[in-house]
Amino acid sequence: MNAPESERLTRAALSRLGEPGDLRLLSLVDEFGAAGLYQLLVEERDPEGLLTDVAARLAAVNPTRELDQAARLGLRFVIPGDAEWPSQLGDLAGCAPLHERGGTPIGLWVKGPLRLCDLDRSLAIVGSRAATSYGDSVAGEIAAVAALAGFSVISGAAVGIDVAAHRGAISMDAPTVAVLACGADRVYPSAHRSLLDHIAQTGAVVSEAPPGCAPHRIRFLARNRVIAALARGTVVVEAATRSGALNTANWAGRLNRQLMGVPGPVTSVSSAGVHEQIRLGAMTLVTSGADVLEMVGESGQHLVEAPRGHTTSRDSLTTRQQQVLDAVPVSSRATVDSIARVAGLGMLEVRSSLARLEVDGLVDGGQAGWRLTALAHA
Amino acid sequence: MNAPESERLTRAALSRLGEPGDLRLLSLVDEFGAAGLYQLLVEERDPEGLLTDVAARLAAVNPTRELDQAARLGLRFVIPGDAEWPSQLGDLAGCAPLHERGGTPIGLWVKGPLRLCDLDRSLAIVGSRAATSYGDSVAGEIAAVAALAGFSVISGAAVGIDVAAHRGAISMDAPTVAVLACGADRVYPSAHRSLLDHIAQTGAVVSEAPPGCAPHRIRFLARNRVIAALARGTVVVEAATRSGALNTANWAGRLNRQLMGVPGPVTSVSSAGVHEQIRLGAMTLVTSGADVLEMVGESGQHLVEAPRGHTTSRDSLTTRQQQVLDAVPVSSRATVDSIARVAGLGMLEVRSSLARLEVDGLVDGGQAGWRLTALAHA
Repeated sequence: MNAPESERLTRAALSRLGEPGDLRLLSLVDEFGAAGLYQLLVEERDPEGLLTDVAARLAAVNPTRELDQAARLGLRFVIPGDAEWPSQLGDLAGCAPLHERGGTPIGLWVKGPLRLCDLDRSLAIVGSRAATSYGDSVAGEIAAVAALAGFSVISGAAVGIDVAAHRGAISMDAPTVAVLACGADRVYPSAHRSLLDHIAQTGAVVSEAPPGCAPHRIRFLARNRVIAALARGTVVVEAATRSGALNTANWAGRLNRQLMGVPGPVTSVSSAGVHEQIRLGAMTLVTSGADVLEMVGESGQHLVEAPRGHTTSRDSLTTRQQQVLDAVPVSSRATVDSIARVAGLGMLEVRSSLARLEVDGLVDGGQAGWRLTALAHA
Repeated sequence: MNAPESERLTRAALSRLGEPGDLRLLSLVDEFGAAGLYQLLVEERDPEGLLTDVAARLAAVNPTRELDQAARLGLRFVIPGDAEWPSQLGDLAGCAPLHERGGTPIGLWVKGPLRLCDLDRSLAIVGSRAATSYGDSVAGEIAAVAALAGFSVISGAAVGIDVAAHRGAISMDAPTVAVLACGADRVYPSAHRSLLDHIAQTGAVVSEAPPGCAPHRIRFLARNRVIAALARGTVVVEAATRSGALNTANWAGRLNRQLMGVPGPVTSVSSAGVHEQIRLGAMTLVTSGADVLEMVGESGQHLVEAPRGHTTSRDSLTTRQQQVLDAVPVSSRATVDSIARVAGLGMLEVRSSLARLEVDGLVDGGQAGWRLTALAHA
């Protein structure tokens, strides 16, 4: 089941007319429907001043040609009503705007075999472009663990953490999704041509902006909401205090998605933004792919076993048995009487405790009294 | 004002009879008073089996000699009712036990000029004995900042984080407090003789255990509650998942003290225990002395300024002005008409935005059109 082609044409036109995440345009679509709004503009009416803004673009728009050209570039335009439409994006409709951006996208331009409706089990991993090798390595590891568990890894194809996350998924031969701020046909940053080619062949390259669009600054703010909304949870691996990754994180929080942060050395500026958010209670601290899966996994499926240190035979002793053990000397031997005094416990109890400790191999009794065994020092 | 000497003698005797933090003994003191309980024992009555346990010690106890010997070692025995008694220890009375240890100490053996009643502004800094140089450096830095702000730094004089914390305070010529698990006259670990000498001359070396006592394992568990109870807050800098520092942290939490943890690389086992506690919401993440002071400082005195990145002239632009700026080319010049189309905004607005951007020095207008200035790339 797909949306009617007339709806796709209208939305392709609106996608070209407006900016990604333009609140006014998207709420007018809610009000009049895509066809209704487009009709208003073609009739040269100016709802809320929209025509004034888009008049220059309207003269040039040609949605049929737009979709043909996109198809030639290997792109499809997925819209609400399509079987492929990822229903979780609907959460954006009720969500407060951020930097004047918000709303459910008109549609998404997609290149690649992965179908967007299959992103219900997905994880966004984002972070600083100025990542450290520590951050790269942790991001790659978390992505690999999530990919192995069947999660699709979503990120923004930027240098730094984004690339490390995509590569972590690719290392497991798992599909990954790059959501771009420019058109999905463009390569940005240009150094990532082969990465984006690979993602387009195995996963999906996605954009709310139509083909050909340049990566303008404000388009990143709109793009970040799409990353956060597509994914079940967002992990921020490294982010300085003004990092764009915190904008994605903010969206994940607004959308009630799981929001997680990986700590790092407090001496690293690349972790300062993450630390601040954890400190404020906005993000949950995670240290590994296992921690992340516990947060985003189906309930109970990925419960992390609390890390436990080495367990020794001492661990099963009662406090009073421990008290007796503490009172037994290392090299010289001591009498039960002396041990009782040092331990601050009665003779009878000390005797029975020593018997138990001897069974455990922790003390060694003899004619001259008791002493610790080598095991007790271990 | 001090407690009567008879009370001090009785408590000195009980201090020698029982183990630090022995719940039964301390609750019997609550029930009968120190003198009443001591009388019961001398009369060979056996309340709750206490006499059975302490009989061997009771035969040898001599509180007058005990206090004389302590005085010769430069130690005083501070008890409830003394002007010097730190009243915050009273919080231990209502606190659930941990590993069968708890309760308000019978008294504290103290060496050094710092008076315990002056520890109302104090901070405990604890952590792993197997500290990394990262942990040592962060612990020392937090201690120095806290000391400069007039806080006394309390720790346990162990190798690793404890020593780094004491040294951080000492580096600011500030007094610091070492709470030991052995007698306050003893040196443990032995490598810390000069450190403990220095602390005893400038701050205070404190123990709940009477002089001469060895550092038995279970005494560390009782000692940790004293550290947590004396301090207004506890910072854990590094702790593996079974670190004794987490026992101190647990006490701080039970006592409703501020409990803070410093994160580190997720690849470091020395930070794993701290990360787990932050993740569970038991500890608040702190990254610096300033963060710590905000948590333990008098309300409003040490509010941390949220870390802010560099602010540029771009930051004061509206989204729509930013949209215009994004549409101005870098090298070639563009007409207002072309900029309006690229930006998706009306001509009038683009014209007025360009005027504002020109005033900010971000764009440069001319006969052939508009382009970005060097400042816009900065």
